[in-house]
Amino acid sequence: MYSIVVENIYLLVIVTLISVLQNAFFLLKVEKECKGVHKNPAAFERVSCANRNCMDAYPTFLAVMWCAGLCLSQAPASFAGIIYLVVRQKYFVGYMGQTSQSTPGYLFGKRVLFFLFLMCIVGIFNYLLVRFCSSDYKEYVETITSAASALLLLP
Amino acid sequence: MYSIVVENIYLLVIVTLISVLQNAFFLLKVEKECKGVHKNPAAFERVSCANRNCMDAYPTFLAVMWCAGLCLSQAPASFAGIIYLVVRQKYFVGYMGQTSQSTPGYLFGKRVLFFLFLMCIVGIFNYLLVRFCSSDYKEYVETITSAASALLLLP
Amino acid sequence: MYSIVVENIYLLVIVTLISVLQNAFFLLKVEKECKGVHKNPAAFERVSCANRNCMDAYPTFLAVMWCAGLCLSQAPASFAGIIYLVVRQKYFVGYMGQTSQSTPGYLFGKRVLFFLFLMCIVGIFNYLLVRFCSSDYKEYVETITSAASALLLLP
Repeated sequence: MYSIVVENIYLLVIVTLISVLQNAFFLLKVEKECKGVHKNPAAFERVSCANRNCMDAYPTFLAVMWCAGLCLSQAPASFAGIIYLVVRQKYFVGYMGQTSQSTPGYLFGKRVLFFLFLMCIVGIFNYLLVRFCSSDYKEYVETITSAASALLLLP
Repeated sequence: MYSIVVENIYLLVIVTLISVLQNAFFLLKVEKECKGVHKNPAAFERVSCANRNCMDAYPTFLAVMWCAGLCLSQAPASFAGIIYLVVRQKYFVGYMGQTSQSTPGYLFGKRVLFFLFLMCIVGIFNYLLVRFCSSDYKEYVETITSAASALLLLP
Repeated sequence: MYSIVVENIYLLVIVTLISVLQNAFFLLKVEKECKGVHKNPAAFERVSCANRNCMDAYPTFLAVMWCAGLCLSQAPASFAGIIYLVVRQKYFVGYMGQTSQSTPGYLFGKRVLFFLFLMCIVGIFNYLLVRFCSSDYKEYVETITSAASALLLLP
């Protein structure tokens, strides 16, 4: 039981751990700015806002990534998760930047989340096909998904 | 392995996906108001607050729904999840409404969360009964739970 | 299938349920202060801020605890989860206290989260050892982890 479970989720767990490290990094940044809030209130406001936006989207990201990994295949889901973390890092750093910069908005990583969302739908659709039509396309779908996940690297 | 896992969670995954869509809808509303914040700061404040309250309760909801689905039975848990999403939609739309309207408060969907919470407790209790007394009431409990979940439809 | 799954997660589910109860307690506190916000805006600000900090860290905590419980062993993970909930309760109550008190900061329960984080890494490392070297240290690791979790009780 133990090995089978871990075999199917260990990449997802690794991505989750990296995201936790990133959350800790964000919180440390906020705490650092919080101590110097009297000198630079605008910077604290920006970093706190960036952290809040990232945290608001965090449960959604975790839920979609784990669903995609469990329903279809963990390798492309974890790869998309890594890409999402890179996008989030860029968003956070960009938000902390110059005041004159335009606010990067609330949404980020839309493309990655959309890809993971599609993976979930395909996984469930494939399960229903297996159940009601006894036709299993899982291997083809996994190959296509792995190939498609490379498209996320496009800027 | 794969089919067994997906068979037991696919309804939960579908509800999770719907909740993700709803989150995206909320974020789009916030972003739309954010662009017009100079014209109508009160509306932005309201929609941002409604979004924050919904997001604060989101991990709690996901955790309780998945626990209830895994411990007892996925069909009533998913049904309660759908009801929760409907309640949340009504809460969000009501919050965005007239300023004169009384604030709907921080809590919403208490009844649904309480029902899911009870499902978890019953599921764990049943597991302990199976383990220590070798008496399995799971089928009766599932039937009762499915029937009881219809009570959530009462206004 | 059902019994095997519940057997490996029931302690985690119980800790999750307790954390949900605690979230409800926090929200009730916020709602109570919100009604008296005209009399004491500082108290509302404090309790709302404490609640937001707790909620921001909540998905991270859930993710790490479940990963640790699934990858290695549920008993020490649940024990660490209980300790985290106690720390969070102390943090929340401390935050609500006197205004003159120094702000307790954004981070709390660092030690517990770090312990759970280590558990995840050890669990994945052990899985990779099993897979590539066919040497299973899981029982030793579980014993050491259970003993080490007692160290969290140190103040």
